[in-house]
Amino acid sequence: MVYNIIAMNIYETSLELHEKYKGKITIALRDTEPLDQVKLSAYYSPGVAAACLAIARDPSLLPVYTWTNNLVAVISNGTAVLGLGDIGPKAAMPVMEGKALLFKNFAGIDSVPIVLNARTADEIVETITRIAPSFGAINLEDIAAPICFEVEERLKATLDIPVFHDDQHGTAVVILAGLINAMKVTNKTLSDCKIVMVGAGAAGTAVAKLLHLYAQPEIISVDSKGIISHDRTDLNPEKKLLLEMTNPNNVTGKLEDALHNADIFIGVSKANLLNEDLVALMAKQPIIFALANPEPELSYELAQKTGVAVYATGRSDYPNQVNNAIAFPGIFRGALDHGVQKITDQHKIAAAEAIASLVENPTAGEVIPSVFNDQLVKTISEVIR
Amino acid sequence: MVYNIIAMNIYETSLELHEKYKGKITIALRDTEPLDQVKLSAYYSPGVAAACLAIARDPSLLPVYTWTNNLVAVISNGTAVLGLGDIGPKAAMPVMEGKALLFKNFAGIDSVPIVLNARTADEIVETITRIAPSFGAINLEDIAAPICFEVEERLKATLDIPVFHDDQHGTAVVILAGLINAMKVTNKTLSDCKIVMVGAGAAGTAVAKLLHLYAQPEIISVDSKGIISHDRTDLNPEKKLLLEMTNPNNVTGKLEDALHNADIFIGVSKANLLNEDLVALMAKQPIIFALANPEPELSYELAQKTGVAVYATGRSDYPNQVNNAIAFPGIFRGALDHGVQKITDQHKIAAAEAIASLVENPTAGEVIPSVFNDQLVKTISEVIR
Repeated sequence: MVYNIIAMNIYETSLELHEKYKGKITIALRDTEPLDQVKLSAYYSPGVAAACLAIARDPSLLPVYTWTNNLVAVISNGTAVLGLGDIGPKAAMPVMEGKALLFKNFAGIDSVPIVLNARTADEIVETITRIAPSFGAINLEDIAAPICFEVEERLKATLDIPVFHDDQHGTAVVILAGLINAMKVTNKTLSDCKIVMVGAGAAGTAVAKLLHLYAQPEIISVDSKGIISHDRTDLNPEKKLLLEMTNPNNVTGKLEDALHNADIFIGVSKANLLNEDLVALMAKQPIIFALANPEPELSYELAQKTGVAVYATGRSDYPNQVNNAIAFPGIFRGALDHGVQKITDQHKIAAAEAIASLVENPTAGEVIPSVFNDQLVKTISEVIR
Repeated sequence: MVYNIIAMNIYETSLELHEKYKGKITIALRDTEPLDQVKLSAYYSPGVAAACLAIARDPSLLPVYTWTNNLVAVISNGTAVLGLGDIGPKAAMPVMEGKALLFKNFAGIDSVPIVLNARTADEIVETITRIAPSFGAINLEDIAAPICFEVEERLKATLDIPVFHDDQHGTAVVILAGLINAMKVTNKTLSDCKIVMVGAGAAGTAVAKLLHLYAQPEIISVDSKGIISHDRTDLNPEKKLLLEMTNPNNVTGKLEDALHNADIFIGVSKANLLNEDLVALMAKQPIIFALANPEPELSYELAQKTGVAVYATGRSDYPNQVNNAIAFPGIFRGALDHGVQKITDQHKIAAAEAIASLVENPTAGEVIPSVFNDQLVKTISEVIR
C-alpha cells in the first residue's frame, strides 16, 4: 500500500468524488415511512406545538424531542485550514463537511458544518454563543492560533454543551496514546523522557500541555524562531504560558540545541525539518512523531536508516498514523450519550489510555490503532462520562 | 376525515413520534459505499485540499464541491412561534426541525434548523451574515414583526444567496393563488374587489403588499386596535407603510366599519372573530379566508349557513387549506436549481399563478391544490428563475 494514495493522485480522485456526489452529506428523515396528513400534522403545525411547549417549560427536554441529542456543529472561520492556512470560510467548507462525514461514518453522529465570516475572538465567540441552542455539542476546527485558545476557553466557560477544539485536543490525545505505547516498546518512562516539540500553534501547544499534565516530562518547545525560552522577547501571552510548563533549564538556541539527548521528537511543523545528523544528536532508541502533512519532518526511509525506535506520521500509508479521526468520534459519542457538559483534561487522558489499550502488544510497527479499528468509538466513549 | 386529527389528539401523537425517533431529521452520507482508506484520503485530508483550493480561487465553485447546492438554513429566534408567541430559541427548535422535514419530504432539499439567541434586528442580521457562507439559501421563520421586516430587507440587500421569510411570503403566495381561483368561482375580478385584511403582523402585511402589487384592489387593513387609517396616532413605521397601499378612502373605526360591502375577508387574527351578522355586512358571494389556527375566524359550519361562496382555512380537515408547505418547497427548489440570488415579488406572483394553475376547474370546494399534489414543486420551481 505504501505511496499508492499519492501515486493515484488523491487530489484528482477527491475532486471527482466531490463533483459526482455534489458534496458529502445530506439530510434524511428519521421516520422513513411515507408522510401522510396525520404525520404532517404531528411533526409540524399544529401537533408540533406540544413539543415546543414541553421544551419551553423545561429546556432540558430539548434533546428528548429534537435531533440535538446526536448533533455536533463543526465550526471554522477558515483561518488555519489543513496546511493551506487562511483560505476563508467558503474554501474551508469541504474540510468541515468532510469532518461531518467522519462523524457519521465512525460514530453515527449527526453533524453540521458551519463556516463563519468572523475574524476576531469576540466575533467568533458571539456568533457561536448565538447559534449554540441549535446543537448538542461544538467541534471547533481550523481556527488559527492564538485566537483559537481564547475562543475555546470563553465558550467552555459559558455554554451548557461540550466545546472541543479538535486541532488542539484531538491531536494531543492521539499523540499521548501513541507515546504511552511507545514507552512499552522502548522500555522508557514518559516522566523521565526529554521531549522536543516543534510547532507551537494550536496542536503543538495542546500536546505540550497534555504531556505536561500527564507525566511532567522535560519538554522543549521550538517554534519557527527557535527554542521558546526566557531569553525570547517576542513571545505572545500563549507562548509565555507554554513556557511555564516547558524548558525548565532555559535552553536557548535552535532545534539542534534542543535535540541533544532528546528521547522524543514531536513535529507539527514542516517537511524534512530533520536529517540524519539531527537524529544522531538524540538519545538512543529515539521516538519520532513526524506529523507535518503531507511530507513529514523525517521520511520513513530515513527513520529506518537512522535507527529510530518508534516512528509515527500523519499519513495513512505508513504505520502508526496520528489521525484525529481516531479520537474525536468516540469523545463526542461519549459526551452526547452521557450528557457530559465539559470535556476535561481528565477526559482527554482517559481517552488516550483507552486508545492505547486497543493495541494489545505494542511494537515499533503498531503503537497506534487503525482509524478503522471497530472498537475505537465504543472504547473511548465509555470513558467520557 | 373531518376532525379526525383533532379527535385523535394530535398533540399526544406528536410527542410520541418525537420521542420515538429522537427528533425528525438526521445526517446521511451521499456516497453510501463503505469508506475505505482511499476514500477517507479523498473526502478528508489530504485529498480534500483540492476542493478547498478550487473554492479559494473561485468562490462560485462552493456549490460544485459542497452540499450548499441543495442546502437551506431554517432560521428563527423563537419570538413568534406558531400561535405560541415568544417561546425562545430552544422551544422553537421542533418547528424548525419540522420545516427541515417538510423541505426534504416535499422537495428533496437538505435543510438545517438554526435557532438563535438573538433579539434585536442588529443581532439577528449580524449572526446570519456571519454564518451565511455555510448555506445555499436562507428561510427565515417565526421571527416577530416588525423586526422580521428589517431583518429580511437588510439580509436581502447584502447576502449573495436567497433570503425568504416564509411567514410573510409563503402565506401571501398561497393566499394569492387561492384568490386567483376564487375569482373564477365567483366571476369577480380581483382589482374590483374590496378586501378586508385582519391582522397586520408578518403575514397580514405581506399579503396586503402582494395583493396590492398584483391587482391594486381596495384593501382595508385591520389590527387589534381597529382599522389602520390616517386618524390613528399609534402606527409604527411598518404600519404607516402599509397604510400607503391600503385604505384609500381613509375609513375609520372597527372591523364592522370595514366589512360593509367587502368581497373578501382574509383573517390571520383570532378564533371566531366573525359571526353571521358580520358576514351579512359583506357583499354577495363573500370570499372568506379564515386562517387563524387552530380555530378559524369563522367556522366551516357558519360559513355554510351564511352563504359564503369560497371558504379557506389553515386546517387540513377542511377544503382549501392555506398551507405554506404548498409554496416554499417549490420556491426554494427553483431558487437553488436556477442559481437565483434574490426571490423577487415577480417570483412570488409567478409562484401563486403556478399554484393556481394546478386546480384545473376551480370550485368552491377546491381553489387551492392539496399540499400532497405531486406536481406542486416541479410546477413552482419552473417559474423561479
